[in-house]
Amino acid sequence: MSKIVMKFGGTSVGTTEKIAHVANRIRKEKEKGHDIVVVVSAMGKTTDELVKLAHEITESPTKREMDMLLTTGEQVTMSLLAIQLNALDIDAISLTGWQAGLQTDNVYRNARVENLDGSKILNLLEEGKVVIVAGFQGVSSDGEITTLGRGGSDTTAVAIAVSIEADICDIYTDVEGVFTSDPRFVPNARKLEQLEYDEMLELANLGAGVLHPRAVEFAKNYKIPLRVRSSYVENEGTILKEEVDVEKNLVVRGVAFESDIVRLTIEYEVPFNGSLASIFTTLANNHIDVDIIVQSIVDGVKPTVSFSIKKESLSEAITVLETHKEVLGFTFADFEVGLAKVSIVGSGMVSNPGVAAQMFDRLRKENIPVKMVSTSEIKVSVVVPQQNMILAANALHDEFKLGLSQ
Amino acid sequence: MSKIVMKFGGTSVGTTEKIAHVANRIRKEKEKGHDIVVVVSAMGKTTDELVKLAHEITESPTKREMDMLLTTGEQVTMSLLAIQLNALDIDAISLTGWQAGLQTDNVYRNARVENLDGSKILNLLEEGKVVIVAGFQGVSSDGEITTLGRGGSDTTAVAIAVSIEADICDIYTDVEGVFTSDPRFVPNARKLEQLEYDEMLELANLGAGVLHPRAVEFAKNYKIPLRVRSSYVENEGTILKEEVDVEKNLVVRGVAFESDIVRLTIEYEVPFNGSLASIFTTLANNHIDVDIIVQSIVDGVKPTVSFSIKKESLSEAITVLETHKEVLGFTFADFEVGLAKVSIVGSGMVSNPGVAAQMFDRLRKENIPVKMVSTSEIKVSVVVPQQNMILAANALHDEFKLGLSQ
Repeated sequence: MSKIVMKFGGTSVGTTEKIAHVANRIRKEKEKGHDIVVVVSAMGKTTDELVKLAHEITESPTKREMDMLLTTGEQVTMSLLAIQLNALDIDAISLTGWQAGLQTDNVYRNARVENLDGSKILNLLEEGKVVIVAGFQGVSSDGEITTLGRGGSDTTAVAIAVSIEADICDIYTDVEGVFTSDPRFVPNARKLEQLEYDEMLELANLGAGVLHPRAVEFAKNYKIPLRVRSSYVENEGTILKEEVDVEKNLVVRGVAFESDIVRLTIEYEVPFNGSLASIFTTLANNHIDVDIIVQSIVDGVKPTVSFSIKKESLSEAITVLETHKEVLGFTFADFEVGLAKVSIVGSGMVSNPGVAAQMFDRLRKENIPVKMVSTSEIKVSVVVPQQNMILAANALHDEFKLGLSQ
Repeated sequence: MSKIVMKFGGTSVGTTEKIAHVANRIRKEKEKGHDIVVVVSAMGKTTDELVKLAHEITESPTKREMDMLLTTGEQVTMSLLAIQLNALDIDAISLTGWQAGLQTDNVYRNARVENLDGSKILNLLEEGKVVIVAGFQGVSSDGEITTLGRGGSDTTAVAIAVSIEADICDIYTDVEGVFTSDPRFVPNARKLEQLEYDEMLELANLGAGVLHPRAVEFAKNYKIPLRVRSSYVENEGTILKEEVDVEKNLVVRGVAFESDIVRLTIEYEVPFNGSLASIFTTLANNHIDVDIIVQSIVDGVKPTVSFSIKKESLSEAITVLETHKEVLGFTFADFEVGLAKVSIVGSGMVSNPGVAAQMFDRLRKENIPVKMVSTSEIKVSVVVPQQNMILAANALHDEFKLGLSQ
């Protein structure tokens, strides 16, 4: 008998029919004698619809109230799933984030898990209940409702797995596992049987969209076996672990991409005075995630620094920068929208210096301009025009022989 | 400067456009310097839609989980209203039932308010904030989410008014006040300027649909001035107080009606053995509201007892009765659906014995059969076929000269 956390994403619970299907999956695991905790996201497009309602009112809704609004989505799913399980004579109980004891800091819309006391869940499991917990949401120490940011339900699942010392944390999704690239856009993409936490971390951070990076980080830190599986197809999915068997000696293991990137450029009229740190501290204090940072200081030319953020953070980033313009010591800021990021990832890359060059060469052959470059030990990212994103991803997937037919 | 509780019902907040209108109403009161607490219901048909989702799964969803499900409705409204007020530069904060400290017993779907510590709301008011509280919902002492039953948002509003010692509790609704009858079905109905708590209580209990009876009871017990006003038309509405000025010496002050009534009849094969109390205790323990009870014991005829319940409680009532059949000592139970209740209400009725006779006479003239009768000091109710309900209401409204043109 094992303790299992099963997490189902929004598309897996998009209708009451799909919820019935999920309940059936849960019943099968329960009948094997396992203790089951289920974590659910909001149904289908619910979150988008709630965001749309708020945006009918204003373009910049209060973050606290957005958390109030959005947390209703998971609450609807969890109660419907509990109703469905109870209707199948499976004793099930749903818990909101605060009821489950998922405590976070008080950063609205992007809170971090601070603590999760698993005792309430463990008590309910001992009573034989299937415990369903609302993903994505928590409560701060002063009783404020918070959300964990995009994809935060994965984090909830891993946090619960840690708190109850679960044997495995299964992330059920609409894909069969982690692929070498997103098969919706890269038709040649292939499912990976295994992947290292770090590789997944880069893929997740780069927007592969399968798992939330914080969830992977969490799982890595606590060595929780994490499995990405399909809600529909009953196969083994992709298992994340610390070190994987080398497949075909591939240096690159995946190609990730992310749309709606904006590049901001700041130019200094006066000599550069070390305010680089100040800019990014200010942005961080305002919870604007900066991704790639490129700085260029050339003699005789005004120093500039460019960085990329998500499109949705643009209006706030500009407000923050304008407000702090004088303190930060710059006099001009520009931005370029309509960009995307494409990255290659693989832990073997560190010992293979030619990979980046091979990447740039292929992009040049495809006539794709590179706007920014960033490298780490296990990945190389480029920022390209949005309209070239899919072409770039497919070309690189082909270049590094990741496909099914290679 | 006064402390005002403003409660807005579902139709008043049915769209973001309507929420903007409500925000404007709140702004006007705030600009007068008042401290404002707002209580909101779920938007328009949200609750119905959530119930429909649950019923797609099963006809008898778990009550606990239904409360989980339904409480999301008010949470959506309150956060959107807070977003709207903040967008108008009015400092506003929304609170769920548990955050506001509205503590109830743990009867799911029909909980009673046990306590409301107003200190959190008062602190927020002191900070100059408009405080928005989700109506209809509370939390039990063991942290379970509960709902106050149909129309419970009114109760929330009065409970808050009591806890913060508000000067007035304004119930904003889609009608301009309390009418002599429901103007949607009785075209000749007229708005009342004043009404006694007790009369309102009978009207509310009888399904006049303007105010929840518990809310009126609450207001009466704590002598909270309660005003029913229109969300759209800016007039004074109807004020509820202990004793009102007699208008035109009318004995009857209103005609109320309620559809979807079911009459259950129980017959005893064995001599009646005092199990009458047991039946209604059993039904009460299962939280089935029984309204009219009629008992008839005639020599030589088997004793019967008939009682009316709401249609929605029928399946549960039958289950409960079947389960307890042997203990309760009856051997036959029957029911009649398709019924409605029509009542006349007025505190002057007690000193006017001919009122009931006049009522029956008029119904006879209209060829409306009377299935059950129940009387109290300030009302007479009859159960009639559902298809005669509107005719009966209009006829009685006319009979007792309640109309505009009389």
